[in-house]
Amino acid sequence: MTLSPEVRSLVQSTRQAARILAKADSETRDQALELIALELEQQKALILLANQADLKMAEVANLSTALIGRLKLDEAKFEAMVAGVRDVCRLADPLGQRQIHRELDQDLVLERLTCPLGVVGIIFEARPDAVSQIVSLAIKSGNGLLLKGGSEAIRSCEAIVKAIYQGLAKTAIATDVIQLLTTRAEILEILAMDKEIDLIIPRGSNELVRYIQANTRIPVLGHADGICHLYIDQSANLAQAIAVTVDSKTQYPSACNAIETLLIHQDIAAQFLPQVAEAMPQVGLRGCERTLKILPNIQAATEEDWQTEYCDLILAIKTVDDLESAISHINQYGSKHTEAIITEDQNSAQIFMQDVDAAGVFHNCSTRFADGFRYGFGAEVGISTQKMPPRGPVGLEGLVTYKYQLRGNGQIVANYSGKSAKTFTHLDLE
Amino acid sequence: MTLSPEVRSLVQSTRQAARILAKADSETRDQALELIALELEQQKALILLANQADLKMAEVANLSTALIGRLKLDEAKFEAMVAGVRDVCRLADPLGQRQIHRELDQDLVLERLTCPLGVVGIIFEARPDAVSQIVSLAIKSGNGLLLKGGSEAIRSCEAIVKAIYQGLAKTAIATDVIQLLTTRAEILEILAMDKEIDLIIPRGSNELVRYIQANTRIPVLGHADGICHLYIDQSANLAQAIAVTVDSKTQYPSACNAIETLLIHQDIAAQFLPQVAEAMPQVGLRGCERTLKILPNIQAATEEDWQTEYCDLILAIKTVDDLESAISHINQYGSKHTEAIITEDQNSAQIFMQDVDAAGVFHNCSTRFADGFRYGFGAEVGISTQKMPPRGPVGLEGLVTYKYQLRGNGQIVANYSGKSAKTFTHLDLE
Repeated sequence: MTLSPEVRSLVQSTRQAARILAKADSETRDQALELIALELEQQKALILLANQADLKMAEVANLSTALIGRLKLDEAKFEAMVAGVRDVCRLADPLGQRQIHRELDQDLVLERLTCPLGVVGIIFEARPDAVSQIVSLAIKSGNGLLLKGGSEAIRSCEAIVKAIYQGLAKTAIATDVIQLLTTRAEILEILAMDKEIDLIIPRGSNELVRYIQANTRIPVLGHADGICHLYIDQSANLAQAIAVTVDSKTQYPSACNAIETLLIHQDIAAQFLPQVAEAMPQVGLRGCERTLKILPNIQAATEEDWQTEYCDLILAIKTVDDLESAISHINQYGSKHTEAIITEDQNSAQIFMQDVDAAGVFHNCSTRFADGFRYGFGAEVGISTQKMPPRGPVGLEGLVTYKYQLRGNGQIVANYSGKSAKTFTHLDLE
Repeated sequence: MTLSPEVRSLVQSTRQAARILAKADSETRDQALELIALELEQQKALILLANQADLKMAEVANLSTALIGRLKLDEAKFEAMVAGVRDVCRLADPLGQRQIHRELDQDLVLERLTCPLGVVGIIFEARPDAVSQIVSLAIKSGNGLLLKGGSEAIRSCEAIVKAIYQGLAKTAIATDVIQLLTTRAEILEILAMDKEIDLIIPRGSNELVRYIQANTRIPVLGHADGICHLYIDQSANLAQAIAVTVDSKTQYPSACNAIETLLIHQDIAAQFLPQVAEAMPQVGLRGCERTLKILPNIQAATEEDWQTEYCDLILAIKTVDDLESAISHINQYGSKHTEAIITEDQNSAQIFMQDVDAAGVFHNCSTRFADGFRYGFGAEVGISTQKMPPRGPVGLEGLVTYKYQLRGNGQIVANYSGKSAKTFTHLDLE
């Protein structure tokens, strides 16, 4: 597609500003975050007013209650939003980390150092509080940022970005480093800029993520599906199995790390299934044939159920022959997100964790722990279900890459080849 | 596209065999490599005979001298090929490396461990000695492998794979883990299998790489272009500048890390350019207007020259105003591969290495050092010019990913949220 001169020039100014940000030291970046937090606090009334206007329009437009819930900024959410900026500020600097330091030969020294990706594009829906979090992560990691929010949150996002600009204006960092895009046409333009944008992070529905993955050559950090399973082995502690099932399904059913399918070993199905059904009466169960023999009043599961992320209080149940069958089912239907086993048998747990192909393989705990904050990353940029790193919950690490720097005093390769070739020392340094 | 049942079943058998290989311990994998090396040695005569047949067909088909050179297996190449298998064997095990070991709370421990990608597809041209190297890397890293070589090397590749199978037959590793594909139609089928294949590594011409990148959703490890630059700053040591220019251009002109464009600071152009032209009379020079004033007898460079990877003894030369202009030119035309500066000014070097956007930024040494073996990786899986890791020369690290393993004793997330929420300890362990 042909890019409009406006968008091209906007992205170029972001890229230019990002180059300068990339050189800012850790203190400058952290100070900018603190100034942004202060400015947000000062403009709280204006931001909440803008949010009120968005909410009014959302009601007029008859948007879903769930969406309005995500759109709404109340006092508590606002405070969490500002605290989030300061949390990112406190994280370790992700830039300039030395991953390799090696003498190749005398006075020829290789370093691998982390550096920013360049320009990151974020496309998100509804939640205006995502703006300040994403901006903080981008500044902390030295990246330029193109933000495209949903039209339903436009007034809130603009008010938040205005406060961010006023915070940045007090620093040496150019405000161009952050750009808020407001029209839908700009999404398509952004997706086409694979030379100018280094990473796209979609935050929203599975449909949004799938659409973006299918329409860009830029790397995408995200996941379209979260079809997670919990397998209850025959040697499970049943009380534990019930508690973990209830938590994995009901603690936050619309989360991507909630389970969609429960797999149960045939030997304990008759004992376990009635108990788990009783423990979560609010969940609509769907069972395979063998499960229906034990729970005759639930709906029958179809092939489609094994492939569905309900994002709701619905759970498919399959009674399986053994550990092997459970692993096969997961490797066939799982989305490589998070998979868990409940068992007292260490050997079965080991086999499960080895053979299940997923970013997270858990033993005797809830799948809901799959999260950047719970893992201790201090922030979550996204969760990736791709096979290549970064996979699983991704913290600031996902916004940086590295460069190899090699310093010499005139070395040439000709001296390291042929008959009287010099040899490399390959000595790792401190 | 619809996949033929034959290819689908072949890939599934590779995937299955790879799952078992992934569980093999380091010793088993290393032993397999040694058995393969022995079998190659024993079948040397048969392999060289098959190569003779390929060479005869290549002559009949009037293939280029360069291609025939790459196709040809002589005694020295054969020995290097077998030594290469043993070199991979000696590398550190890339699997099971613990990257994170963290207590999230009491008895809730997170580990991040490296594991194989799964199934890797390699599409290469001509060089039959690539087969044993790639097979060794795949076995060492626990991955299944689909090999698609060029038709011109088919007899040599089949003979080598036969020896590899006979080596593997003496181990617990199923031969299905390695598959040699022989028809061109299979390439398209492989590229469509984004659910079954985890990484594609193209080894061959820029056209091959570009074709593959444009026709698959599978991650591709490789680079289509290697447009590298050398910038001679005004404070360069001229003798060093000349030696590094000659090496970077002529030591192996068809390599991707050879330079295509030389940038020279205007203040020393009149002194430097005649000397460098004299130092490499075999190189065809093309210059910008200012360069032509100093070297009036060389060809004029056009816009196209700045965008061209010659892979030949041709060098474009541009006289630039200053360091800033050199960096701008590189960031506009470079392929993010390897870029070098020659200067005695540490500050200029620092700015160059910070601002140039490339996998490798070098100071006072030849661009030809950008190579997995020279970096001390012991092997080179490929060189990536993408921004996301892995970038630059990629060793065995490029064939592994990681999994998060979380072990608990029944923990649920509900206890870590709400009013009386437990807090995480997030304590890094040994």
